[in-house]
Amino acid sequence: MKIALAQLNFHIGNFEQNTQKILTSIALAKKEHADLIVFPEMAICGYPPRDFLSYNDFIKKSIAAVEHIATYCEGIAAIIGSPDFNTNPKGKDLNNSAFFINNGKIEKKINKTLLPNYDIFEEYRYFEPNTQFEVIEYKNQRIALTICEDLWNVGVNPLYTVNPMDELIKQHPDIILNIAASPFSYQQEKTRKEILAKNAREYNLPVLYVNHVGAQTELIFDGGSLVMNAKGELVKELKYFDEDFCVINTDEIDASEQISESENNIEAELIHNALVCGIKNYFQKLGFTKAILGLSGGIDSAVTLVLAEKALGKENVKALLLPSQFSSDHSINDAKQLAETIGVSYEVVSIEETFKAFESTLNPYFKGLPFNLAEENIQARIRAVLLMAFSNKFGYILLNTSNKSEAAVGYGTLYGDMCGGLSVLGDVYKTQVYNLAAYINRENEIIPINSILKPPSAELRPDQKDSDSLPEYDILDKLLYQYIELSKDPEEIISMGFDKSMVEKVLRMVNSNEWKRYQTAPILRVSTKAFGMGRRMPIAAKYLI
Amino acid sequence: MKIALAQLNFHIGNFEQNTQKILTSIALAKKEHADLIVFPEMAICGYPPRDFLSYNDFIKKSIAAVEHIATYCEGIAAIIGSPDFNTNPKGKDLNNSAFFINNGKIEKKINKTLLPNYDIFEEYRYFEPNTQFEVIEYKNQRIALTICEDLWNVGVNPLYTVNPMDELIKQHPDIILNIAASPFSYQQEKTRKEILAKNAREYNLPVLYVNHVGAQTELIFDGGSLVMNAKGELVKELKYFDEDFCVINTDEIDASEQISESENNIEAELIHNALVCGIKNYFQKLGFTKAILGLSGGIDSAVTLVLAEKALGKENVKALLLPSQFSSDHSINDAKQLAETIGVSYEVVSIEETFKAFESTLNPYFKGLPFNLAEENIQARIRAVLLMAFSNKFGYILLNTSNKSEAAVGYGTLYGDMCGGLSVLGDVYKTQVYNLAAYINRENEIIPINSILKPPSAELRPDQKDSDSLPEYDILDKLLYQYIELSKDPEEIISMGFDKSMVEKVLRMVNSNEWKRYQTAPILRVSTKAFGMGRRMPIAAKYLI
Repeated sequence: MKIALAQLNFHIGNFEQNTQKILTSIALAKKEHADLIVFPEMAICGYPPRDFLSYNDFIKKSIAAVEHIATYCEGIAAIIGSPDFNTNPKGKDLNNSAFFINNGKIEKKINKTLLPNYDIFEEYRYFEPNTQFEVIEYKNQRIALTICEDLWNVGVNPLYTVNPMDELIKQHPDIILNIAASPFSYQQEKTRKEILAKNAREYNLPVLYVNHVGAQTELIFDGGSLVMNAKGELVKELKYFDEDFCVINTDEIDASEQISESENNIEAELIHNALVCGIKNYFQKLGFTKAILGLSGGIDSAVTLVLAEKALGKENVKALLLPSQFSSDHSINDAKQLAETIGVSYEVVSIEETFKAFESTLNPYFKGLPFNLAEENIQARIRAVLLMAFSNKFGYILLNTSNKSEAAVGYGTLYGDMCGGLSVLGDVYKTQVYNLAAYINRENEIIPINSILKPPSAELRPDQKDSDSLPEYDILDKLLYQYIELSKDPEEIISMGFDKSMVEKVLRMVNSNEWKRYQTAPILRVSTKAFGMGRRMPIAAKYLI
Repeated sequence: MKIALAQLNFHIGNFEQNTQKILTSIALAKKEHADLIVFPEMAICGYPPRDFLSYNDFIKKSIAAVEHIATYCEGIAAIIGSPDFNTNPKGKDLNNSAFFINNGKIEKKINKTLLPNYDIFEEYRYFEPNTQFEVIEYKNQRIALTICEDLWNVGVNPLYTVNPMDELIKQHPDIILNIAASPFSYQQEKTRKEILAKNAREYNLPVLYVNHVGAQTELIFDGGSLVMNAKGELVKELKYFDEDFCVINTDEIDASEQISESENNIEAELIHNALVCGIKNYFQKLGFTKAILGLSGGIDSAVTLVLAEKALGKENVKALLLPSQFSSDHSINDAKQLAETIGVSYEVVSIEETFKAFESTLNPYFKGLPFNLAEENIQARIRAVLLMAFSNKFGYILLNTSNKSEAAVGYGTLYGDMCGGLSVLGDVYKTQVYNLAAYINRENEIIPINSILKPPSAELRPDQKDSDSLPEYDILDKLLYQYIELSKDPEEIISMGFDKSMVEKVLRMVNSNEWKRYQTAPILRVSTKAFGMGRRMPIAAKYLI
C-alpha cells in the first residue's frame, strides 16, 4: 500500500485555508497513486484550538470541512484529525478524533485515548478519552491508528493506566500510524525518535508518523514527520520547520536502508531555526508584515534583530536606537554597525528631552528624594512609549528582546523593556543567547564582537552591570535550568554544589516575580519548560519567598 | 456526634501560617467538645497551588504539616485536605486527598474522584482520580467523605462517567461531608445550594459543606459553608467573604428548622463585597498596603477608588488626576469631589508637558501626519508612566480600572490604561459598573452624579465618546454575555434578535483583541466566565475574524 504523509502548516480556525491545503495535498497524492493520505492530529482546525472548542459552531465547521473534503476522496482514502462531538451523553462533550475517509465518505472515527494535560497541553479540558480499540482494515492491511500521546505512555512510572497499543496489538495490525501535534523544544527531536523507535521495537511493527509544522503563537511545531521500520530504524524523514510531503510504499519499509540522522542536532542551530519560524508565522497568521524593536547595542536586541530580519526580510524591520544620558557611545556605535551590516533601517531617537519633562512634572512630588528604581524605570518606559508610537503610527509589531534569565529573576521593567507583541528570546537563557550570537557569526562578524564581549548592562544608571545584583550568567542559568526545566527542589539544587544562600536568593527572585511575568508577551517556546502557558504559578502566594 | 466546620482564609504555600490557623481552630473545637473538625479541600497548602505541585518539596511540606497537626488531634478527630503522592506507579504522581486524623495520627486517606478541568480548574493536570470508595466509620457514624466536584456530577448530560455518591451510598452512610474549594461568582451561591440540596434529597442524607474563604489573586472564595438536612433544607450557614466557625450536632440536623436565605442575593452587593475581599486579600497576601490609581472623573475609576478605599482604608489609597488638553473641567472637578468625599489624598499631575516633549521628540518622524491613535495612546501611556513612577517611588500597587466591556472589545491602551497589578473591574460589564455605583450611592451621593450620568468617554481626542465606535453598553453587554459567559454561537445570538452586522463586528473585535488581553493584569473573577485563567484562546488565529 502506498501512503502519503502530508506535513502542513495550518492556521487555527481558518477552515477555508486549511481545507484548501488539504485538498491540494490530496490532488498531489492522487497524482502519485497513493492509496491513502494522512494528515496530522486536529489538522482541520489547527492545533491547539483551545477554548474555540467551547463553541459548537467551531466543532460544526470542523466536521463540515471534513465532510466537504470527503467528497474529494474518490480513488484515495484519507485520515484527517478533527474535533468531534462525543455521542455518549455521559462524559465531556467532545472527542479528539481521527476520521478515516474512503469512497467519498467518513467510514470510521477513531478517538484519542491518552489526553495530555501537562505543560502546555490541556486536552482533558475538552475531550473525553477513548476506551474502545479497533484497527482500520483497508486494502488488506490492518492499521493501528493512534493519535500523538497514545504512543507516549512508556517507562517505569507511566502517566496513564492504559496503553492503547497494548490493546490494538491484539488485533494483529500490520503498521502503526501516529498523527501528531507535537511541539518543538531543542530536546524534542531526540526524545520523539526514541519514543517512536521504542514502540516500533516493542510491537515489532513499522511506524508512520505525521506531525504539524509551523508556529501557533508561542508553540512551534517542527515537523520532522518520519517512517521507522520494525527495528525502530529511521527510513524516511520529512523536513524540519517547513511543509513537506512524501509517499511511502509500506511493502518496502522493512527492506529500506536506515537513513542517517538529519543535521538538525546543534542546539543553537535548532533554536535559531525555530525562532525564525516562530516570528515568521506569528506575523503571517496575524496578517502583519513589519516589526520594530529597540536596539541597545547589547547582545539580546542584536540577536533579536538578526532573527527578525531573517524571518521578515530587511525591508520589513525597523530598529530604534533610544539613547539616554547613561548610554555609552560604544553601545550606539555597536547598534548602528549591526543595523548597517544587515541593511535594516534605523533611527536614533534620544530619550533625554522626554526624560527631562518627566523629571520636571514629577519634581513637586519627588524633589529631595534620591535617583533610584523609579527613575531607572521611567527611562525604560519612555522607550516603550516611543516604540509603541512608531508601532501605532506605521503599523509595526513591537518585538520584545528580553531573555529567559532576566524573565526568571524579574530583571526588567514592566511596561518598559518587557513590552512587545511577541517575546523572541523569552525562552532562551542568556548563555544560550551567546551561543545564538556565535552561531549567527559562524562565518562572518554580523553581530559586532563588542556587543558579545562587553559585560551585560541595562544602562539605566552610571556604570550599571547585570552582575551587580545577579550571579554570573553561566552559574545563574544552570541553577535556573534545574529549578524551571527540571522542577528540582531547593535541597536537590544545593546538593549539586550550588551555594545555599545564592540558591535561596535566586529562587526567591523567581517566585516573587510571578506577577511581572503574568503580564509579558507570548514567548516563543524552545525549551521543555517555557514561561507562559506551560508554567502556571500562583501570584499572591508565599512559597520559597 | 458534634462536628466543627472551620471556614478559613489560607495563604497558598504559607505552610506555617496555614498550620497555625488550623491549630487555632482545633483548640477552639476541643473547647466546644466537638468530636470531629473539618477543614476545606487542600486547606494545608491553599487553593489553587497550581504548578507549585510539580515540586516534590511542596508536597512533602504539605504532608509534613498534616503530620504535625495530627499530633494535636488527641481527643478530637480532624479531616484536612492536602495533596499527596499517588502510591500507584501508574497514573499521575499525585492525588487530591483528604486525610482523616484520629488518635493523633492519619488513619485514612480519601482521594478525590471527579477532577474538574474546565474554566479556571486544571486538576487533571496534577492528580490521578480515585477509583475505590469507602466510607469513614467514626463514633458509630458512617461518613461519606467527598471532595468538592465529587458531588457536582448531576443533570442529564453529566461531565463524568462515574458518580462517587452512587458508590458510597452502597455502604449506607449516615451523612455526606463535602470539603470544597469552590470559587465565587455572582451566580454561584444559588447553583451551589441547588447542587447540594439535590444530593441531600437524592441520597436522603444530611450534607455538611466546608468551603474556603478569601481571595487567591483572581479567584475569590466566598465561604458560605453550610449544613442541609436530608430534605435539602438549609439549617446552618456560615458567613460570606469572612472566616467563620461553627459546631453542629448531627443528631439534631433533621430536627432543625430551615433557616431563611442570607441577604446576599442582590447582584451588585455580591459583586461589591467580592471585589472588596479580592483587593484586600491581594494586598495582604503579597505584603503590600498601599494602592494608587488614575482618577479620570469617569465612573470606572470612581467605583474602583471607592472599592479600594473600603478594602485598604482611606489612608492607604492615593488618586492621581492626570488631565490632558482634552480633559474637560467637569471631569477634574468630579474626580476631586469624589476624592474629597471619601477622604482619599490626591494630586493633579498634568500630562501636557510630557506630551509636548513626546510630540517634539517624534516630530522628525511624524510631522505632516494626522493626529490619530498613536497620539491618543501616547497620552494614555504617559499616564501609566507617571502612575508607575509614584508606584516605584513610594511603594504603591497600581490598580487597573478597566471594565469587562472594554476588555472584551479591546477598547483600551496596552501599556496605558490597561496597566496595573490587579484589575478590579475587568470581570464587571459597564452596565454592572453602573449598578455598583448605584449600590455605593444607595444612601448618599458618594460617587458624583455627574460621573454616573455623563456619556462614557476616554477623553483622548476632542469630543470623543465610547458610543462613536461601540454599540450602546446595554446592548453590547447583553451580546457579550451570550458570547463570553454562555459560549453561544454567532447564529444563536443573531437569532435572539441582535443585529447581524453588529454581532459580527463585535465578535470580530472580541476575537481579534486576544493579544491585548493576554498582557493584562490578573482580573478579579466575579462571573462564571472571566478573562484570564478561565478563558484560554489562541492569539495568531482566524475565527470569526
